[in-house]
Amino acid sequence: MKGMAVRTIHRACDEEIAALRELGVATVHEAQSRSGLMKPYLRPIYAGAKIAGSALTVLTPPGDNWMIHVAVELVKAGDVLVVGVSSECTDGMFGELLACSLRRRGCLGLVIDAGVRDVSALTAMRFPVWSRAISAQGTVKATLGTVNRPIICAGTAVSAGDVVIADDDGVVVVPRLSAADVVAEGRRRASKEEATRRRLEAGELGVDIYGMREELARRGFVYLDGPEE
Amino acid sequence: MKGMAVRTIHRACDEEIAALRELGVATVHEAQSRSGLMKPYLRPIYAGAKIAGSALTVLTPPGDNWMIHVAVELVKAGDVLVVGVSSECTDGMFGELLACSLRRRGCLGLVIDAGVRDVSALTAMRFPVWSRAISAQGTVKATLGTVNRPIICAGTAVSAGDVVIADDDGVVVVPRLSAADVVAEGRRRASKEEATRRRLEAGELGVDIYGMREELARRGFVYLDGPEE
Amino acid sequence: MKGMAVRTIHRACDEEIAALRELGVATVHEAQSRSGLMKPYLRPIYAGAKIAGSALTVLTPPGDNWMIHVAVELVKAGDVLVVGVSSECTDGMFGELLACSLRRRGCLGLVIDAGVRDVSALTAMRFPVWSRAISAQGTVKATLGTVNRPIICAGTAVSAGDVVIADDDGVVVVPRLSAADVVAEGRRRASKEEATRRRLEAGELGVDIYGMREELARRGFVYLDGPEE
Amino acid sequence: MKGMAVRTIHRACDEEIAALRELGVATVHEAQSRSGLMKPYLRPIYAGAKIAGSALTVLTPPGDNWMIHVAVELVKAGDVLVVGVSSECTDGMFGELLACSLRRRGCLGLVIDAGVRDVSALTAMRFPVWSRAISAQGTVKATLGTVNRPIICAGTAVSAGDVVIADDDGVVVVPRLSAADVVAEGRRRASKEEATRRRLEAGELGVDIYGMREELARRGFVYLDGPEE
Amino acid sequence: MKGMAVRTIHRACDEEIAALRELGVATVHEAQSRSGLMKPYLRPIYAGAKIAGSALTVLTPPGDNWMIHVAVELVKAGDVLVVGVSSECTDGMFGELLACSLRRRGCLGLVIDAGVRDVSALTAMRFPVWSRAISAQGTVKATLGTVNRPIICAGTAVSAGDVVIADDDGVVVVPRLSAADVVAEGRRRASKEEATRRRLEAGELGVDIYGMREELARRGFVYLDGPEE
Amino acid sequence: MKGMAVRTIHRACDEEIAALRELGVATVHEAQSRSGLMKPYLRPIYAGAKIAGSALTVLTPPGDNWMIHVAVELVKAGDVLVVGVSSECTDGMFGELLACSLRRRGCLGLVIDAGVRDVSALTAMRFPVWSRAISAQGTVKATLGTVNRPIICAGTAVSAGDVVIADDDGVVVVPRLSAADVVAEGRRRASKEEATRRRLEAGELGVDIYGMREELARRGFVYLDGPEE
Repeated sequence: MKGMAVRTIHRACDEEIAALRELGVATVHEAQSRSGLMKPYLRPIYAGAKIAGSALTVLTPPGDNWMIHVAVELVKAGDVLVVGVSSECTDGMFGELLACSLRRRGCLGLVIDAGVRDVSALTAMRFPVWSRAISAQGTVKATLGTVNRPIICAGTAVSAGDVVIADDDGVVVVPRLSAADVVAEGRRRASKEEATRRRLEAGELGVDIYGMREELARRGFVYLDGPEE
Repeated sequence: MKGMAVRTIHRACDEEIAALRELGVATVHEAQSRSGLMKPYLRPIYAGAKIAGSALTVLTPPGDNWMIHVAVELVKAGDVLVVGVSSECTDGMFGELLACSLRRRGCLGLVIDAGVRDVSALTAMRFPVWSRAISAQGTVKATLGTVNRPIICAGTAVSAGDVVIADDDGVVVVPRLSAADVVAEGRRRASKEEATRRRLEAGELGVDIYGMREELARRGFVYLDGPEE
Repeated sequence: MKGMAVRTIHRACDEEIAALRELGVATVHEAQSRSGLMKPYLRPIYAGAKIAGSALTVLTPPGDNWMIHVAVELVKAGDVLVVGVSSECTDGMFGELLACSLRRRGCLGLVIDAGVRDVSALTAMRFPVWSRAISAQGTVKATLGTVNRPIICAGTAVSAGDVVIADDDGVVVVPRLSAADVVAEGRRRASKEEATRRRLEAGELGVDIYGMREELARRGFVYLDGPEE
Repeated sequence: MKGMAVRTIHRACDEEIAALRELGVATVHEAQSRSGLMKPYLRPIYAGAKIAGSALTVLTPPGDNWMIHVAVELVKAGDVLVVGVSSECTDGMFGELLACSLRRRGCLGLVIDAGVRDVSALTAMRFPVWSRAISAQGTVKATLGTVNRPIICAGTAVSAGDVVIADDDGVVVVPRLSAADVVAEGRRRASKEEATRRRLEAGELGVDIYGMREELARRGFVYLDGPEE
Repeated sequence: MKGMAVRTIHRACDEEIAALRELGVATVHEAQSRSGLMKPYLRPIYAGAKIAGSALTVLTPPGDNWMIHVAVELVKAGDVLVVGVSSECTDGMFGELLACSLRRRGCLGLVIDAGVRDVSALTAMRFPVWSRAISAQGTVKATLGTVNRPIICAGTAVSAGDVVIADDDGVVVVPRLSAADVVAEGRRRASKEEATRRRLEAGELGVDIYGMREELARRGFVYLDGPEE
Repeated sequence: MKGMAVRTIHRACDEEIAALRELGVATVHEAQSRSGLMKPYLRPIYAGAKIAGSALTVLTPPGDNWMIHVAVELVKAGDVLVVGVSSECTDGMFGELLACSLRRRGCLGLVIDAGVRDVSALTAMRFPVWSRAISAQGTVKATLGTVNRPIICAGTAVSAGDVVIADDDGVVVVPRLSAADVVAEGRRRASKEEATRRRLEAGELGVDIYGMREELARRGFVYLDGPEE
């Protein structure tokens, strides 16, 4: 891999990022036609964190965290570090010291397709991480990778400056240039869902609200009355 | 798959269900000769929930939650929705809106051999779910399945009206007609275990309480005194 | 497998064990040249536990916990039970009763390359367990194994009397005779890390502290200024 | 588990079984509404085997093959041994000696949700096996299970006397009483597929043969002419 | 997902494609700085196939092969169909009929991040497939996806018209516009490797050919003479 | 990890090694009380290979094959290279060039807890490999490891000079000093199995040969005559 870092990146505007955070992962994923979701093996190290920020992308070989150190310098307040690996790895590429350094620079959290360690300390300092594994396995600083170049992380393409939203449901990526559209569509969906929730809580049924009965009949769906013996 | 729902099912009586809940998953599993346990990849979305209820069974294709909407209408208070899939799937087939609708109808919780989303909201409203994954991945409503027909969920056969018990140890299924026997046997085991616990806490050893020393000797089990160097 | 138990084992001294506990899994793993770490699929059943003690080793066949009962008798205060299996297994080989018995004898916790059950009760009594799975699946007491003989647990060799350290990052094993050296090296690392943390918190960068800039240049690492379009 | 074997079972007639074998796994699975397929982790130990026979069902604990020995006595010519396990296991529960014994009694092959060993010898004698793993790991004969009782094998319910069809695509189970219907439906599908194949080979397109163009248009599917830059 | 197909795509020239095929997956992967390799869970359904062609990309939901039918019409001679899925799936999305249709149009083979069926027939007709699984599980034609839009397949980004090379080592993707460069670099590597092979076969050692001895010494690598006791 | 290689190792005698090869993996595993078997995820890259030799052990970090190059120099005719990794890895750490070099020095084959590439070439030259994966993913030569020090490979402890036996059933390790005993016990088992095979082929049943009927009765095993309806 040719070692390379891009110093300056475009970022989405703060209002869009804040709005995407508010909508949350599931709604954002729906609002962009069910794309951009990272694989569900990425899990938060503690429950309840919810962030959105600009992706600062890192690609590293397995068992090597050199490029994360390189990336720290390029972080701006509001960024989320997103780390992909060139082959599957669960090593603990990230821990308390890197978190201190990232927090100092305003980084909101980490999404990593590998392992992390010092999770007690990370939890205590409320530095949120979505990772593939928790592992104390140490790593080397021996091989170059890239920073702020397009990567694949947990099955999803991420470019530097894309908006990354992460909460208890997982992690979703919104291309920077479609952030505004996704916010608009997400808000439409959110109000529609709010209306639906009220009707469901009032006792209406989804099969009625969504008009499913006719389609069920058309497809020959059968209702049998009696219990099976 | 031929689309089909059975409207009315037989359910175990409330006393049996309450007793099985009280016994808990591990004891119930033992009390029915170590059968009926779902695979351990099913995990609760939050710790501490403990439910027992009548299974309302759903079978869906991967990535499709149409049948869950159909099932909601057939739920009665005290039911537990049990969802199997026709092939392995981690998509988020269930979320906050369906939980609102199920809760409105008295459903106690969900067991699903697939993914769920909106887990922060589900945790906040204390709607318990045992699932294979947490994933925001959206699903379609395109293909028929079945409701209240026998299914396989997480490696275990479930029929509508079977008693489903779920707690932090996992999920176990008791056939409706053997519920009374399992309660009786479970209570026998529970009191025996309570007695054993008191003896262990008093310092007696399992090898003595269970009479293992003779069998160990008969099998030629060897005790070496010194430490190995 | 020839059934066999060694009654008496050598243990590290209390001060070394306490010091290793204090250092924690990640630092100890680094301090012994990144060796001795168990695979990251072992996870604690509840967050926040942190123990160190002398390994009392058990080897069992899958689905059989007879040898755990045999091992209880040999536990001394401050020991940690470490259970390996002869082939992969997630059955619930351990539960509340065994925990009561172990606690009575001063055992600090359990590391098991299989499943456990009664996790609500274990959590309530604060008996810490690191396991491969949580499963109510019951086991038999039919086949012999070994106690206090060398085993492999979660990919790592463990001998009776080795020091086992376990926390939220996982589990690491230190050979008894190198405990003192690892403590010394671990303390050196810990103070160095503390100094580094203060510099990072003051705003210095890892690429400067670790002197990486020269090596990056030597390798031909390239910084591009502009954002990619 | 209560140890129990059923000596006599009902079997489907030879003509139905032969017809199902001829249709093959994929067509039979389709012909019974896409049900009855075992999970795809079951793989043949050598390519090219294709069998159909009556299921003789066995349930065993992990790491224990006692019940397979019990089952051998009940095999009739044309049977297929189907072995489920009470918890996940890859041990080599079956090898050359059992294969010799089964072949002597006319058994056509083995489907096992665990491991097998002696695969060179099994291949040389052309005794076909579909298994979860290949493993030399030995097993004990210590704990009872069941023979010819309903089981779950690789995610699918199997009753003794059901027809089991296995080929390079996997394993499918047809309930004995629906064998005739599935044969009829399977043949309908097979001739239809044969006709479709001829049309495809002649250059017609699936989108035309299956009449998809109208539905694509109705759903708003868009064709863009130019290449993307 | 918005349903969409791009009819016309740019392709690399035949000479470049042939040269990449000749170089093989491992050399091509090295020649483009170790990028573009699909995850190793993709395996050929039979050994010995070796192809290179222009990617015709398809994205489908799990359990749905509608878009593959749509894609067939757009295939040109020399293309390789590359199918990604929106969430993990092992269903048999592809079989003999689709292979007949693809072959008729000159398609060289299939790379699919899901399952295939009819593998005996595919092997007999020598239609090569690299897939995640072999499964007879049938799929529906219910939900739209995309054809010839950028996708992720087995962890790697693929655009329509990229060159896909597949052999017994796996699958690698070369962006169309860098094909010529990769060919040149690959040939350089291939001749260098050929020279190295001759020296190794003549008895020279890698530690000498690659000049490793000095670096080993510099790092403090220690050679101990005697055997360990 | 401290980089270190041991130049000279003790090896078992040729007769013992030849005898263990002849016995094969399954019998050897049984003959040493069911110990020493590597995990079944190690699979041969082609069927039919069967080797036994002295282990030359290598420990490497993930994604790094430097130590394999170092090990080649220490190989003697009849050795088997056994490669463990410090954390899970599927990268292609080994290919045709290393195989040429090893063959030149008389190495019989490779056992590696990681990936290999160039499998077509390795198959063509009949250089047998048992690996965790097949992957073209390239590796670096950046970090030290050990050669001829004790390692864990695929869950099993291996010391340099141990006898490694590998065939289609997997890989088993026999400690050098117990080789003679295992040969003797293995031969006893092999003749006993041969006798049993003849009785089974003559139609006797395992339940009779192994005297199981009495124990089945003693345990309350029940035979039911009629088929279930």
